[in-house]
Amino acid sequence: MNEGYNVAIVGATGMVGQAFVQVLKERRFPVKKWKLLASARSVDKTINIGGEAYTIEEAGPDAFRGIDFAFFSAGGEISKDLAPEAVKKGAVVIDNSSAFRMDPEVPLVVPEVNPDAVLRHKGLISNPNCSTIQMVVALQPLHAAVGLKRVVAATYQAVSGAGKEAVDELKDQSRAVLDGQEPEKAVIPYKGATTHHQIAFNMVPHIDVVEDSDYTKEEMKMIKETRKIMGLENLPITVTTVRVPVFNGHSEALNVELKAPLSPIEARQLFYEAAGVVVMDDPANFVYPMPAMTEGKDEVFVGRIRADGSVPYGLNLWVVADNIRKGAATNSVQIAELLI
Amino acid sequence: MNEGYNVAIVGATGMVGQAFVQVLKERRFPVKKWKLLASARSVDKTINIGGEAYTIEEAGPDAFRGIDFAFFSAGGEISKDLAPEAVKKGAVVIDNSSAFRMDPEVPLVVPEVNPDAVLRHKGLISNPNCSTIQMVVALQPLHAAVGLKRVVAATYQAVSGAGKEAVDELKDQSRAVLDGQEPEKAVIPYKGATTHHQIAFNMVPHIDVVEDSDYTKEEMKMIKETRKIMGLENLPITVTTVRVPVFNGHSEALNVELKAPLSPIEARQLFYEAAGVVVMDDPANFVYPMPAMTEGKDEVFVGRIRADGSVPYGLNLWVVADNIRKGAATNSVQIAELLI
Repeated sequence: MNEGYNVAIVGATGMVGQAFVQVLKERRFPVKKWKLLASARSVDKTINIGGEAYTIEEAGPDAFRGIDFAFFSAGGEISKDLAPEAVKKGAVVIDNSSAFRMDPEVPLVVPEVNPDAVLRHKGLISNPNCSTIQMVVALQPLHAAVGLKRVVAATYQAVSGAGKEAVDELKDQSRAVLDGQEPEKAVIPYKGATTHHQIAFNMVPHIDVVEDSDYTKEEMKMIKETRKIMGLENLPITVTTVRVPVFNGHSEALNVELKAPLSPIEARQLFYEAAGVVVMDDPANFVYPMPAMTEGKDEVFVGRIRADGSVPYGLNLWVVADNIRKGAATNSVQIAELLI
Repeated sequence: MNEGYNVAIVGATGMVGQAFVQVLKERRFPVKKWKLLASARSVDKTINIGGEAYTIEEAGPDAFRGIDFAFFSAGGEISKDLAPEAVKKGAVVIDNSSAFRMDPEVPLVVPEVNPDAVLRHKGLISNPNCSTIQMVVALQPLHAAVGLKRVVAATYQAVSGAGKEAVDELKDQSRAVLDGQEPEKAVIPYKGATTHHQIAFNMVPHIDVVEDSDYTKEEMKMIKETRKIMGLENLPITVTTVRVPVFNGHSEALNVELKAPLSPIEARQLFYEAAGVVVMDDPANFVYPMPAMTEGKDEVFVGRIRADGSVPYGLNLWVVADNIRKGAATNSVQIAELLI
């Protein structure tokens, strides 16, 4: 019997890094040895995750000797530097950054959608963007049943997607506004921006840098990654991404044009049977997914399923998931589970 | 020279009621005599609006003798009871409730879109739903230029749209959550609901009651009212409305299919020239409309104007407005201005 795997977490002090450890433990992933890695300034610190203490080691090329699985979530630059080193040392890297996602040599995997893609890996597998993952989990059952013609998405994304500092900023700004003080702004839309906006009690229609098309990188990620994961190179899809004052849990209003008729009742049935999906859809009784209730959950929650009469086969959906869990850590661990 | 008009405000203790007074004064509407009306329990109270004190009188059929304009915002039931009485007494009623909006005899007016409709009034003019108004102001220049083929809207609606109690609830719940307490829930999705949801740091995809189609009444208002105001009886349009933890200012992600080509540059030019629209659209320099900056403004703010390549002539817009001002009070006062 296999005694288990040596697992490294890169970016272990971050929100996703800590969620990797929690999710691996919850799902009883067979870990023989843990190696929690972070930048030099965190070395020898001890962090407490789910009641257990772990000592942080420095992330560097030599840290990956003897490692079987390395989960990366420390930003694109760290992944570009160290993921190839980890692969050279024989580790399978599951990378949560955007560094390699669109590389045709690198599988981009959501286990409910394209599990077979992992088989093509050459040591490195990319985990998609959080807002992409929950969207494709919801789209896949519809696609499999009748085919997708077009998707229009508007997102409502929590600050946890921008890291711990953004969560703290939302707390601090909220208190300041409630106390009649001027809130300090330093993290939203992103760290290092030349201008920052208040996120408390506000909507910021800007996530990640703006590209030439005036789409944000977050919007382009959702478009390009969805096409790659679903194997629909030319899927007509457009997206507007918005940062909202929610601590954790992304929501999405999806408008879907299908290639053939599918009633809300039939769609609901497909979602009941779909892997990784929970249907919460009884609005007359006040039942629909909301981020306040999906915190800590691994599934993608779907509700507000309605016929859209403005096109022949239209459907509206409201999709919510914990972006740190299914949007990052859980999906990465599921990828590793496919391999063992 | 006309000495001015006698003006009654019905629902004067509410947020929109007070905004009526403020906007009438700011816009120097020629008021000869004010009559601030509310329910019996507020009678003889004095309310302070913009530094001036007004005494509340009881709203009843006799209150409208000698009144030229009566602005109503006290809910549909009060409007159904008292608006016909006010009309009988010779007043022109501008009603902010949904009671008469879809009545074919009653004009439903947004001055930037269908000013001529006021001419058909028989004493009563309806003011549209807040989220409808800002949408049609943004759609009209596009429609006038090239025609609309289809609209997909997702909204991000502030709690002020649910009244003062909802604003207080968001404050109280936010403090409770920040202090680690269980928030009290009584107003969202609406008062009298059998279940209430937390709005602080949450998204509630439910505004007003749920109808048979599983669309909410708010969603159906946006669909039906848009068609009536724009005179596009069969306009293909679908909507998802969501309540968000913002005090004031509704945002909307609009995806528009046009009947002929229109580049983002051309669209921007149309919006620059459009009445009541302010363009804020330089995302690379962090410029786009946000509710935190539209508070107290009368215009509709448009940004994130982008080509949508998923259909032949697609365009994405992000539209923000102060729902208490342009979404209610300002639009009503503009209607009265058309008549004098």
